[in-house]
Amino acid sequence: MKLASLKHGRDGRLVVVSRDLKHCVEVSDIARTMQAALDDWAQIEPRLREASDRLNAGQESRAQAFDPAQCAAPLPRAYQWVDGSAYLNHVELVRKARNAEMPPSFYTDPLMYQGGSDDLLGPRDAITIRDEAWGTDLEAEVAVITDDVAIGTQSADAQKHIKLVMLVNDVSLRGLIPNELAKGFGFVLSKPASAFSPVAVTPDELEGHWREGKLHLPLRTWINGKWFGEPNAGEEMTFSHADLIAHLANTRKLGAGSIVGSGTISNKDRSRGFCCIAEVRMIETIEQGKPVTPFLKHGDSVKIEMLDDKGQSIFGSIEQTVQLVS
Amino acid sequence: MKLASLKHGRDGRLVVVSRDLKHCVEVSDIARTMQAALDDWAQIEPRLREASDRLNAGQESRAQAFDPAQCAAPLPRAYQWVDGSAYLNHVELVRKARNAEMPPSFYTDPLMYQGGSDDLLGPRDAITIRDEAWGTDLEAEVAVITDDVAIGTQSADAQKHIKLVMLVNDVSLRGLIPNELAKGFGFVLSKPASAFSPVAVTPDELEGHWREGKLHLPLRTWINGKWFGEPNAGEEMTFSHADLIAHLANTRKLGAGSIVGSGTISNKDRSRGFCCIAEVRMIETIEQGKPVTPFLKHGDSVKIEMLDDKGQSIFGSIEQTVQLVS
Repeated sequence: MKLASLKHGRDGRLVVVSRDLKHCVEVSDIARTMQAALDDWAQIEPRLREASDRLNAGQESRAQAFDPAQCAAPLPRAYQWVDGSAYLNHVELVRKARNAEMPPSFYTDPLMYQGGSDDLLGPRDAITIRDEAWGTDLEAEVAVITDDVAIGTQSADAQKHIKLVMLVNDVSLRGLIPNELAKGFGFVLSKPASAFSPVAVTPDELEGHWREGKLHLPLRTWINGKWFGEPNAGEEMTFSHADLIAHLANTRKLGAGSIVGSGTISNKDRSRGFCCIAEVRMIETIEQGKPVTPFLKHGDSVKIEMLDDKGQSIFGSIEQTVQLVS
Repeated sequence: MKLASLKHGRDGRLVVVSRDLKHCVEVSDIARTMQAALDDWAQIEPRLREASDRLNAGQESRAQAFDPAQCAAPLPRAYQWVDGSAYLNHVELVRKARNAEMPPSFYTDPLMYQGGSDDLLGPRDAITIRDEAWGTDLEAEVAVITDDVAIGTQSADAQKHIKLVMLVNDVSLRGLIPNELAKGFGFVLSKPASAFSPVAVTPDELEGHWREGKLHLPLRTWINGKWFGEPNAGEEMTFSHADLIAHLANTRKLGAGSIVGSGTISNKDRSRGFCCIAEVRMIETIEQGKPVTPFLKHGDSVKIEMLDDKGQSIFGSIEQTVQLVS
C-alpha cells in the first residue's frame, strides 16, 4: 500500500496512491491525515488496504490523477524525527578526511541525532537557505515511520513497529556542522528542514528487497540533472532500521508517527557514486589534498529516487531546488 | 490567561484555568486541543480570554474543580521541543568539575539541543527508568511555547512570538551523557521524556516579572520533600528566551507549538540552592574531591514550583516519583 499527504492546511489530506503512482483517492472517511491513521493504525490500516486494492484494480470511481507536485511530506509535521548514521563507510570517510580515528564503539553504538520535526518539506519544496557560504548539501536516505514502541523494545521486536518506509533528503549545512559537533549538543542550526518522498509505502510493497529491517535497493541521486550516485541502501548498513529503533527505545518509548532515518547511504565501491556532496569532497581531500566539487548554490537542483525491479519509481522522486532568501 | 490539557486521548482536552488554579472550564467549542489553539492563535486567543475573564469573575456556570493530577502536559506531544543551556553558571560548573575550559564563544553562541517531543509527561506522571545506575537527575527550567516564527527572525522580534510560558523538568540520565556528548550528535538516550507544569500561562499573567524575555522569579525545587533550591530564573540568564528562539531561526522557521526551554536555572549564590543534582555534585567534587549527593532512585520524588508575590503557585507544581521498570 502506498500513502501520501496532499498539501492542505498544516497536516495535509491523506490519500491512497496506486502502485504505479498514476492515481490516488482521498480517504477522509477513513482517516483525514497521515498522523490520524498512524494513531490508530491497527484499526485503520485494513480499511486503507481495501481502498488501495480497489484503486489498484481500477475499481475506484473517485480516483483522481496523482501529482507529486501537490504533495506535502507524508507527515508534514511529526512528533519525532530522529536520524541515524548507519552506514559506517560514510562515518569512516568523514573522520579520515579530518585525520580522526574511528572509535571501536561506533560499530556497536549507533550515532543518532534528534532532528526538528515541526517543518517537514514536500518532495518539490525548495531548500531555503539564508547564506550560500553555509555549504548546503543533500543527504539521500531511507526513513521509516513507526507506531507506538514501548520502552525497552529489542531489535527483534522493533521490526514489527515499522509501518511505512519513505525516502528523505536530510538537508545539511556543512559549514555549520563542525561548530555544532564541537559543542556536543547535536545539530540545531546545521540540519534545517528535511524533505520527503511523495509517498510512504508499507514494507510489503518492497517485495523481497525489504529484508531484516534493511531496504536492499540502490538509492539514485542526481545534481543539476547529472547522475551523482546509486549506492545500495541495504548491503553496507551496519545498523538496521530495527536496530536504530531499539537503540532509541533503550531509555524511552516512541510515539506513533515517529520517523527514524538511516543516515546518508554510502558504499565502499566508489563507482556507485554518492548520496551527499560531503563524501565526494572527502575523497577529493584524501586523494588530491583539497575538495573540488562545490556545495549547492542558489538555483541548483537535486533529485532522489528509488526504482523497483521493473524500473518503476517506488516512492516517487524528491526534486528540490535551492533558493537563497534574505 | 492560564491554560491546561486534561488527560484525554493522545492530545488532551483544552481547559481554561482560573488564576488561583481552583477551577477550570472546558472550551471544546473554541478549540479542542492546545495544539489546535496554537495553530490559529490570533483568532482563538481572544475567545479563550473571554472564557478566562468569565471564569475569573465567577460567572462561568460550567466551571469545574481543577485537579493538577488530571493534567497531561500542556502539549502532551509537540512538533518541537528544543532546550537551551542559558545559565552559564551551570555550564561553567560542569566544565570546572571536569577541568575543562569554558570557550569564549559560549557567551555569544547558545548551547541548544533538540529534544524528543513525541512523549511529554504530565505534572504527576512517573519518571520511568530502566536502570538506576544511569544516574537519574531533575533539571528544573522555564519553557515557552511559540506561534509560527519565520526564518531569520531576530531576537527583538522573537519576543512577540512567545505565547505561553510553563515549567519543565528536563529529566536527565547523567551516566549516559558523557558518551553522547563525546559522539557530538546530542542527547538521544540521556534525555528521556520531560515533564511539564499543570498550566501554561500567557506572559501578562507574570506581571512585572516577565521582562525582556526572561522570567524574574525564583524556581523552587524539593527532593523527597526536602528544600533543594530556589535560584532566580531571570537574573543570571545569559540568553533570553527571545535570544534562544532567534538562534534557532537563523537557519529555519519554527512551527506553531514549538517549545523552547531555558536549560537548568542556576545562580552563582550557592545559598539559593540548585535546580539539578549534577550541580551540587560538581560543587562537592570541586570542594571535597568527590560527589556525595546521590542521584534519584526508585521511589524518590521531586517537586518543582514557582510562586507569585502573594505566595500563590503560578503554574501549579510538577510532582514526580521515580519508577524503576524492567
